[in-house]
Amino acid sequence: MPEDLRNRLDRQPTVAGLSEAELLDRIFPRLRMAAGHTSSTLLGSGDDAAVVAAPDGRTVISIDTQVQDQDFRLLWPNGYRTTGFDVGWKAAAQNLSDINAMGAYATSMVVSLTLPVDTPVSWVEDLADGLTAGIRGLGATHCSVAGGDLGRGREISVTVAVLGTLDGGRPVLRSGARPGDILALAGTAGHAAAGLALLESDIAVDTLTPAERAFVDLQCRPRPPLHAGPAARAAGATGMLDISDGLLRDGKRLAAASNVAVALDPAALAQLAVLLAPASARLGEDAAGWVLGGGEDHGLLATFPGSVRLPPGFTAIGSIHALGTDDGPGVLIAGRAADNGGWDHFAH
Amino acid sequence: MPEDLRNRLDRQPTVAGLSEAELLDRIFPRLRMAAGHTSSTLLGSGDDAAVVAAPDGRTVISIDTQVQDQDFRLLWPNGYRTTGFDVGWKAAAQNLSDINAMGAYATSMVVSLTLPVDTPVSWVEDLADGLTAGIRGLGATHCSVAGGDLGRGREISVTVAVLGTLDGGRPVLRSGARPGDILALAGTAGHAAAGLALLESDIAVDTLTPAERAFVDLQCRPRPPLHAGPAARAAGATGMLDISDGLLRDGKRLAAASNVAVALDPAALAQLAVLLAPASARLGEDAAGWVLGGGEDHGLLATFPGSVRLPPGFTAIGSIHALGTDDGPGVLIAGRAADNGGWDHFAH
Repeated sequence: MPEDLRNRLDRQPTVAGLSEAELLDRIFPRLRMAAGHTSSTLLGSGDDAAVVAAPDGRTVISIDTQVQDQDFRLLWPNGYRTTGFDVGWKAAAQNLSDINAMGAYATSMVVSLTLPVDTPVSWVEDLADGLTAGIRGLGATHCSVAGGDLGRGREISVTVAVLGTLDGGRPVLRSGARPGDILALAGTAGHAAAGLALLESDIAVDTLTPAERAFVDLQCRPRPPLHAGPAARAAGATGMLDISDGLLRDGKRLAAASNVAVALDPAALAQLAVLLAPASARLGEDAAGWVLGGGEDHGLLATFPGSVRLPPGFTAIGSIHALGTDDGPGVLIAGRAADNGGWDHFAH
Repeated sequence: MPEDLRNRLDRQPTVAGLSEAELLDRIFPRLRMAAGHTSSTLLGSGDDAAVVAAPDGRTVISIDTQVQDQDFRLLWPNGYRTTGFDVGWKAAAQNLSDINAMGAYATSMVVSLTLPVDTPVSWVEDLADGLTAGIRGLGATHCSVAGGDLGRGREISVTVAVLGTLDGGRPVLRSGARPGDILALAGTAGHAAAGLALLESDIAVDTLTPAERAFVDLQCRPRPPLHAGPAARAAGATGMLDISDGLLRDGKRLAAASNVAVALDPAALAQLAVLLAPASARLGEDAAGWVLGGGEDHGLLATFPGSVRLPPGFTAIGSIHALGTDDGPGVLIAGRAADNGGWDHFAH
């Protein structure tokens, strides 16, 4: 935790003052708010495990971790302080997006929190509120938090495992794209990357225009298009994945899994870049780089047979082609292989 | 990471030298070994989420995190170095135990790893091998690793979410114990605590007797009695939980959830303590304290109606009583309220 924040919070109650049971008592009432009338949780917290409905005899599952100073900073260069609410919302959004990308609906989450002893109790309460608000705000009406785990560590770490249901349908895989398919995007591309650039800039957060602030908000509290995944499945999508590491990197994953070439339409990319003008002009950065390399919007990239009418929320941004005899799978822009982009956890 | 280990490992390849995809390529073949002929994983890694069978229309789920220097030390005072294999095995064991404690069988795991960039690649490979060996070695034959997530952090952190099936049965809850029930234990109690005391002692690890070494091994690679949970359910267990924080603390949880008094039989406790003599004599410590306060054996505490014949692996260690008019739920030993014990993540 930065010295500054530590000093400011010095007189706030921290998790060191509470037992695990007392801290859970602060958190669980806030998480229960996420449970709607249609909750799939059959048995919630209080036992060694929870029990969740899996109506079609299968459950979809994914897991994702956010770590302090890797996935978020508590204090950004532009002065923005990441709230517990932000971290909770983002944990919900990232995980719900993975379920969406299979064409499924989320049914339940379990959450494991690792907290330094000097973490303010109010920060943890905010995190629970953010998780709940993310689940409800993004429209995951069947989903609730079924249980969790609390522990101590040197840095804040939030892991969510999320369950989902395909309602009897087939999952939409990365490997299903076929030559002749249309490539379509649901959600935004590059907005979270623009927000990240603003957070890392020296433009004070309280001087941002509303348009700029919207990019920062999307970086901190992503808004994946949750109903687009099941809608794409119902419409006959052949392949799908969520854009977590950038259009270029995730496009290459789709290409590799399906053994095809993914051609991005330069005109469509330019239209996406135009939306980023309020931030790219201010920072003197290339909006196209954000569109191609920015992942944390958690948009959906899906392929559809040419005969299919795209479901609401999807825009055509390219097409799928068979590989030439000398070509490997990859992403093409205006007929040329696109350079690498996106983000890797370990590579330097 | 301690300076010493860092120096020793300086010339080993670390995760900093690999991309996320390259590291996953090292790990996944090792995890696939865990998938038996009866695997419940319908769609494994490679997409945004996995798909797992839930044959009775429900899935049991739990999540648990191990953090370096909290749940394990890389180098212990007695010179023992925690291997990746140990951490992988323990992650499997702890999570499988939570499913066991509901009376369920594990079907699948997803794993999220947070790794410092200086973590040796071989340590991570060992972790994958330990996860696989734990799943197979503990007899979780229906379980495999369906997917995961990799990220960077300042300390090693391993989170596992585990799924299970009740095969059409009811879950056995903490709240089901009834006055007149027999209290029974499956597995060991205090052995892992004895192992911890040896690891934290100045008795060099290579001078331990085989009996002492067995306690250390059980601390590093716990052996929860996995088939005892479903067997207890089938036999008509009324209440059950796994002993993760000690007989006393988990006994109190059972008492509170069921609103009863849990009476531990002093003679049975003494028999459990006798097994710890090889370590308690050497360290001059009280074996009874390990029996009552030691949790990481992950034994099962279950209650059965008096008419039930205990299933194999269970030993009677007490009984359940109605609360007196002035008494709250709690644990009694020889008619007296037992003091607190066990372990809390946050309280000091």
